[in-house]
Amino acid sequence: MTDDLTPRPEDKFSFGLWTVGWQGVDVFGPASRPALDPVEAVHRLADLGAAAVTFHDDDLLPDETTRQATLDRFTKALADTGLHTEMVTTNLFGHPVFKEGALTANNREVRRYALSKVLRNIDLAASLGAETFVMWGGREGAEHGAGKNVRSALDRMVEAIDIACDYVREQGYTMRFALEPKPNEPRGDILLPTIGHALALIGELEHPEMVGLNPEVGHEEMAGLNFAHGIAQALWHGKLFHLDLNGQHGPRFDQDLRFGAGNLRGAFWTVDAMLGSGTGTGYDGYVHFDYKPPRAEAADGVWDSARSCMRNYLLLRERVRAFRADAEVQAALEAAGVAALDQPTLGAGEDLADVRGAAYDLETLGARSVALEALDQLALEHLLGAR
Amino acid sequence: MTDDLTPRPEDKFSFGLWTVGWQGVDVFGPASRPALDPVEAVHRLADLGAAAVTFHDDDLLPDETTRQATLDRFTKALADTGLHTEMVTTNLFGHPVFKEGALTANNREVRRYALSKVLRNIDLAASLGAETFVMWGGREGAEHGAGKNVRSALDRMVEAIDIACDYVREQGYTMRFALEPKPNEPRGDILLPTIGHALALIGELEHPEMVGLNPEVGHEEMAGLNFAHGIAQALWHGKLFHLDLNGQHGPRFDQDLRFGAGNLRGAFWTVDAMLGSGTGTGYDGYVHFDYKPPRAEAADGVWDSARSCMRNYLLLRERVRAFRADAEVQAALEAAGVAALDQPTLGAGEDLADVRGAAYDLETLGARSVALEALDQLALEHLLGAR
Amino acid sequence: MTDDLTPRPEDKFSFGLWTVGWQGVDVFGPASRPALDPVEAVHRLADLGAAAVTFHDDDLLPDETTRQATLDRFTKALADTGLHTEMVTTNLFGHPVFKEGALTANNREVRRYALSKVLRNIDLAASLGAETFVMWGGREGAEHGAGKNVRSALDRMVEAIDIACDYVREQGYTMRFALEPKPNEPRGDILLPTIGHALALIGELEHPEMVGLNPEVGHEEMAGLNFAHGIAQALWHGKLFHLDLNGQHGPRFDQDLRFGAGNLRGAFWTVDAMLGSGTGTGYDGYVHFDYKPPRAEAADGVWDSARSCMRNYLLLRERVRAFRADAEVQAALEAAGVAALDQPTLGAGEDLADVRGAAYDLETLGARSVALEALDQLALEHLLGAR
Amino acid sequence: MTDDLTPRPEDKFSFGLWTVGWQGVDVFGPASRPALDPVEAVHRLADLGAAAVTFHDDDLLPDETTRQATLDRFTKALADTGLHTEMVTTNLFGHPVFKEGALTANNREVRRYALSKVLRNIDLAASLGAETFVMWGGREGAEHGAGKNVRSALDRMVEAIDIACDYVREQGYTMRFALEPKPNEPRGDILLPTIGHALALIGELEHPEMVGLNPEVGHEEMAGLNFAHGIAQALWHGKLFHLDLNGQHGPRFDQDLRFGAGNLRGAFWTVDAMLGSGTGTGYDGYVHFDYKPPRAEAADGVWDSARSCMRNYLLLRERVRAFRADAEVQAALEAAGVAALDQPTLGAGEDLADVRGAAYDLETLGARSVALEALDQLALEHLLGAR
Repeated sequence: MTDDLTPRPEDKFSFGLWTVGWQGVDVFGPASRPALDPVEAVHRLADLGAAAVTFHDDDLLPDETTRQATLDRFTKALADTGLHTEMVTTNLFGHPVFKEGALTANNREVRRYALSKVLRNIDLAASLGAETFVMWGGREGAEHGAGKNVRSALDRMVEAIDIACDYVREQGYTMRFALEPKPNEPRGDILLPTIGHALALIGELEHPEMVGLNPEVGHEEMAGLNFAHGIAQALWHGKLFHLDLNGQHGPRFDQDLRFGAGNLRGAFWTVDAMLGSGTGTGYDGYVHFDYKPPRAEAADGVWDSARSCMRNYLLLRERVRAFRADAEVQAALEAAGVAALDQPTLGAGEDLADVRGAAYDLETLGARSVALEALDQLALEHLLGAR
Repeated sequence: MTDDLTPRPEDKFSFGLWTVGWQGVDVFGPASRPALDPVEAVHRLADLGAAAVTFHDDDLLPDETTRQATLDRFTKALADTGLHTEMVTTNLFGHPVFKEGALTANNREVRRYALSKVLRNIDLAASLGAETFVMWGGREGAEHGAGKNVRSALDRMVEAIDIACDYVREQGYTMRFALEPKPNEPRGDILLPTIGHALALIGELEHPEMVGLNPEVGHEEMAGLNFAHGIAQALWHGKLFHLDLNGQHGPRFDQDLRFGAGNLRGAFWTVDAMLGSGTGTGYDGYVHFDYKPPRAEAADGVWDSARSCMRNYLLLRERVRAFRADAEVQAALEAAGVAALDQPTLGAGEDLADVRGAAYDLETLGARSVALEALDQLALEHLLGAR
Repeated sequence: MTDDLTPRPEDKFSFGLWTVGWQGVDVFGPASRPALDPVEAVHRLADLGAAAVTFHDDDLLPDETTRQATLDRFTKALADTGLHTEMVTTNLFGHPVFKEGALTANNREVRRYALSKVLRNIDLAASLGAETFVMWGGREGAEHGAGKNVRSALDRMVEAIDIACDYVREQGYTMRFALEPKPNEPRGDILLPTIGHALALIGELEHPEMVGLNPEVGHEEMAGLNFAHGIAQALWHGKLFHLDLNGQHGPRFDQDLRFGAGNLRGAFWTVDAMLGSGTGTGYDGYVHFDYKPPRAEAADGVWDSARSCMRNYLLLRERVRAFRADAEVQAALEAAGVAALDQPTLGAGEDLADVRGAAYDLETLGARSVALEALDQLALEHLLGAR
Repeated sequence: MTDDLTPRPEDKFSFGLWTVGWQGVDVFGPASRPALDPVEAVHRLADLGAAAVTFHDDDLLPDETTRQATLDRFTKALADTGLHTEMVTTNLFGHPVFKEGALTANNREVRRYALSKVLRNIDLAASLGAETFVMWGGREGAEHGAGKNVRSALDRMVEAIDIACDYVREQGYTMRFALEPKPNEPRGDILLPTIGHALALIGELEHPEMVGLNPEVGHEEMAGLNFAHGIAQALWHGKLFHLDLNGQHGPRFDQDLRFGAGNLRGAFWTVDAMLGSGTGTGYDGYVHFDYKPPRAEAADGVWDSARSCMRNYLLLRERVRAFRADAEVQAALEAAGVAALDQPTLGAGEDLADVRGAAYDLETLGARSVALEALDQLALEHLLGAR
C-alpha cells in the first residue's frame, strides 16, 4: 500500500501525440483548442513522467516542406527529455482520398497510395527506433452491403500486411506489427471488428510471428465485450504486442475518455490481466494511452487528464497488487476453486473410460457453493480502497 | 422472379427440436405452452417442408428410462417422413451442475461429467448420421473478474475439443465440429464471444481441419456486429460449417425472433453472403433455424412462425438473386468499382518501387465518386420488391 | 398498389440545408466535399420534388458581412422554386463558446449569448414564415458526474423556453417550438435524452401548449428504443409537432443514414404510426429528413441519397396502405384482438365489484391464441412487396 | 471518514423477497436453488441489518389454500424482527394469462383479471402498512408492430391507474403509486420504456399527485441512459417515490447484479443524486435493492450478495460525503462554475434587451477553462479511497 504514485520511466507510460494534441474537431463543431507543437507535447509529457510518445505520420509531419525541420526539432526534444518513440502508426483515415478505405479501398490507385504511405512510415519508424508499428484501418469498411466484398477486402489486407512484413525483413528492421480492431465509427461496420477477428486473420499471414494486436479498451467495449477477457485471449495466443488504454461507456460513439473514467471495474480487471495475475506471465510492453481530452477542456484540462491517465493506472496497479497479496483473497480464490481450472480435465495416464465410466453425484455438484460473489466483493473493496 | 416459395428438400431447411418445442419458460414466468412430442415435431416440420431436424441430447432424451423407446419412436418418425438428423449438440447449460460452466467449470468433476456427456452424445450423433456436432458453451464464462482464469479456460476448451476430435477419429466417425459464439446471456460474459474469437481458437487445436463455426445471427447482432460480414470472414477462413438463422434487435436480451423479423436488411445480406454472391463460393450446408416462437403464442403461432422462417428465406433468396441478376445493378457495381478489389494491389511482376515511386493525384482521387448510395438503393428496392 | 412514387408538393417533403450540405467533417478527418451554396441546394431539392427546406442560422448565414445578401439570394430562390421554409433551428453546438453547453452552460455569459442567438433566430424564422422552431441541445450535458447539476440545468432549460415562448407571444408570432431529444454524442450524456424525458419537461413549462417534440429516428434507436412506439406516445400526448427521419443501426455513433437504410422494419412501422393507422389521427406535418450523405460520397451520392429518402418514404407509405387495406390483414387484426384494446376495461355503468367478483378461467385464457406471428408475417410480406 | 459500515434501521435498507428468493430459473435452465421460506428471508435480512422487505403478491402467497397461514407466519416474522413491509407490488407477468400483457393486454378479460389482482393486492398492501405500491408492466409491450396499438395501450394504462387511485382514495388508504419503467425484456419493447416516458404519462392522470416513479438502475442502463441523471430529473419533477438499486453492464440482458457491481462510477453518482448533493433536497425513501444473486451461487452466495448490496451503499455514501466535504473539491466546483448554473440566465429586473444588446467576447469565452477533468478526477480518487 506504500507504492509511489509518481510516474517513473520504468512504468513505461506512453502517449500518442494525437491525444494531448486533439483540437476538438468533431461532427458537430470545429476546433476548440489551438494546435499543439509536438515539441511542446514531448516536453510536457516528459515533465509529467511519461517514458515515450507515439504518433501517426500526419500528426508530426503534416507537410513535406517542413518535414525535415520538424523531424530535427522532434528528435532533439526526444534527446533533451530522454523520451523514446516506442510506436509509430500511419494515418490512413484522414485525407479524403481514404474516404472509402485505404488498404482495402475498392479503388486500386488508393490502395497503392496507402501502401506507399505505410512503407515510407515504416522507414521513419525504424529510423526512430520504434519497436511497434500499429495498423488501424478506421476507414476499411462499409455502411451498406453490396459495396464491399469482405472476402476480397480480407485478401487485400493480408496482401498489404505480407508486403509490409517482407519489407521489414528485407530492410533488416526489428519492429513488429500490431493490428488495432474496432467495430464501427467512422465507418458503419469496420473490417476486423474485434480482437478475435484480428487474431483470426493473423493465422492467414505469411509471417504470423511478426504480427500481433494493439487492442483498445473503448473499441471492445463499444461492442459490449469484456476488455480484460479480450486481452487475456490475446495473451494466450502470444499476441498482445501493444495496447491502448482509455475509457468508454458501452455501446455508443467512441468516447476516448481518460483511463479510469468510464468502466472503472473493467479498468481494474484490465490492469490485473496486464499484470498476468494468476497466470505467471503478463504484458510487459508500454502502457499506452489513446484517449481524447474532452472538447470542452482548455489546455489545463488537457494536461490534467494526461496526468490522471497515469495516476489512475498507478492507483489501480496498487489496488490490484494489494488484492492479489491479501490472504483473505487467496482463501476466497481457493474457495472458488479458481486454480483448479489449471489442472487438465483428463489426468496424465487416464483414458476416456475413466471419465465416461465414473459416477457423478449431480445433485451434490449442482448444489455446491461456487463462492464467487464473496470473491468479487473482496475485489470491489480493494478497488474502493476499503481494505 | 418466378421462384417457387414452397420449401423443398433441396432447400435443406432444418430446425432444432428446441425451437418449436420451446415452452416459454423465461426469467419472469413459467411455461406457457405444453410439452411437444419430438415425434409430432418431426411430422409437422416435414409437412411444412423441412429437410432435417437437430437437437440437444436433453431435448430428445431427457431421462434414461425412456431413452431407448423415445429413440425408437424418433428414428421411426424420421424414416416415415424422410427427414434427416443433420446436426446434434449437447446441453451443457441447463442442469444446475453446469451453473458455473461445463467444459471450463472451475470444478474438475463437473468438467469430467461434461466431457462424458459430450462423448456419449457424439456416439448418438454418429449413430443418427449427423454431419455436424455443435458446441455452444452458454455457461462458460463469468459475471465478475477474479473467479475465472480466462487463459486456463481457453486451455481447458482446447483440451476438450482435442479430446473430442481424437475420439471421432478413433471411432472412424465423419462428423465435423462447429463452435457457436455468443457474447453474453446467460453468463455476464461468455468465453469465445464472437465469430472472430472462435476462429482464433481453432488455430490452436490439434486438428483445426475438423473444427469450424456455427454462427448465429442474433448472437453477433447482440454485440452490434454485422452478421453478413462475420460469415463472410468465416467463409474466407473455410470455416462456415453450419449456421443459425433468426432475428434480433441489436444489443439487448437474446430475442431469437423468427428469421426475417428483426434486422431485415441484415437478413438480405446474410442470404447474399450464404449464396456467395460475387465470390464464386458460398455456404452449401443446411439452412438451420434457431429461433423461439414468442412466449405469447399458442401452438398456432409456433407453426406459423416456423413456416415463416422458411418462407422468408425463400423470399429473400428470390430477391437476392434478382438483385444480382439485374443489369442495372451490375452497372452500379461496376460504377462502385467493387470487382476492382479482387485485383491485387501489387501486380504480378511489380515491385515496391512501382508503388512508392508513383505520382498520385490525391485531389482527384479524394473527390472521386464512389457511387455506393446508388448501389445500396438498388438493393433496398429489390428487397422491397419494388423492381 | 398504383400509388405514384414521384414526390409532389402535397407529400410535404422537407430537408435541412445541413443534410445535403454536410461536407463530411468528422472526428477522424476533414471535409471530403466542397461547400454547397444554399441557393443551389434549394434548386436541386425543388427539382427532386421537395416542398420545403429548413436550416440552422449558421448553415445559411455564417457571417454578418454577407448576411443580408445571402438572405436576399435565398428568399429569391425560395420564390423561384415555390419552396417554403417550414422550420428553423439554432446552432448552439458548433462554436467553441458552446463547448460546455449553451442554454444550460455553467457559464452564465454563454447562456445569455445562446439566448440572444435563439431570439434573433426566432425573428428570422418568423420573417420567413416558418411554422416550427426546433431546439436541439447537443452540447447540453456532461461526460462526468459533478460538473453539471442536472436539476439546475432543467431549471435553466425551462427558463429559456419560457422566455422564448413569451417572446413569440409578445411579438404576435404563430410558430410553435419542438424539442429534439438525443441520448448522447457529442456529449457523454445529453439533457432530455429521449422522447419521454422531453415530454415530461414540457409539463413544467408556462405555456406547454406552445411546445412539442421533434423526435429523430436515429436518436431514439441509439438508445435501443422503438421509434414508432415513441412517436405514438408523442401523438397520444398531442405533441408530435415535427419529426426527423433517417436511418441508424442501433446503439453506436449517430449514423444519420438516409431514410430506409438502417432499421427497415422500424421505418415501415414509423410510416404506419405517422399515418395514424388504426387510430383515426396521425401526423400531418412536414416529412422532414435529417440525415447525412456518407462522407465517402461525392456530389452524385448526395443527390442520389436525397432522392432515395423521399422515394423510400413513398414506397413504405404505399406498402403500409396496402397492408392496412388488405382483407386478410383485417382478419388477422381481428384474430389478434387488436381493436379490443380500444374498449375500456371497465364498462360504462360497471363498478369494481363486476371486475373483482368475476370468475376468470385462467387456464383457458393462458392457453389462448394471440395470433401475433401470423399478423406480423403479413406485415413483413407487404413490406417485401410479396403480397 | 469514520462512518460506520454496519447497516442500521435508520439506513432504511429494503429487499424484495424475490431477490434473495430467486431460485435461478432462466431461459436456459431450471432452478439451481431450493425455494426460500419468506419467514426465513425476513429473519436473515433482519440479521443482516435490513429495515424492511417488499414483495409481489405471488412471491409471498402463491396459492389460496395456504394464504392465510402464510400471512400469519409472515406478519409474526415481521413483528419478531421489527421489519416493515414498505412496498408491495403485483405480479402481472408470471402467469401465462399475462403472456400478451396484463393491464394493456388486447384481451379484455385478461385486463379485468389483472385489475382485480391489483385491487386485491392494494388491500393487502394497506393491511400491512406499505407506503408505496409499485406497478411494473413487464409484459405490457410487443415484439412486432401491428399487434399492439400503443395509443390504446396508454389509454388503458391510464384507465387502470386512475381506477387504482380512485380506489385508494375511496378506501382512505394513504399509499402512493410508483411506476417502474423498463425498455425491453421479457417483451421486445415495453410500454413506458424509460423514466422520461413514465413521467410524461403521469401528467395525463386524474390524480398525478398520487403517482410517481420507481426507477431501477439496470433498466435505464439497458438503454444506455445515465441513471443519476434520470433520478435527478425525477426528483426535479417531485416524482422519485421509490427506487431499485442493482448493477448492470450496459445494453444487454437484464443482469440484476448486486449494487456496486456493474457500473461503479454510475453507482457513486447515483448515491450522490440520492443524497441531493448540491441541491438541498434528495431522496429520503427506502434504499431498496432489486437484484438477483447469480444463478451459480448456492445459499452462501445469496446472503453474501445481500450483505454486499448494503455494504457497498454505505461505502459509496461515505465516499460521496467525503467528496462533498473536501475543501479541494469545493474549490474545483467553484473553478468549474457549477453553482453558477443555479443563477437565472435573465436576472431580476432585466429584460431581453439586456441580453440581446450585450457584447459577447466569443473568442475568450470559447477558449475559457471549464476545469471539469480536474473535478472529475477528484471524484474518482474519492471513489477509490485515495484521498
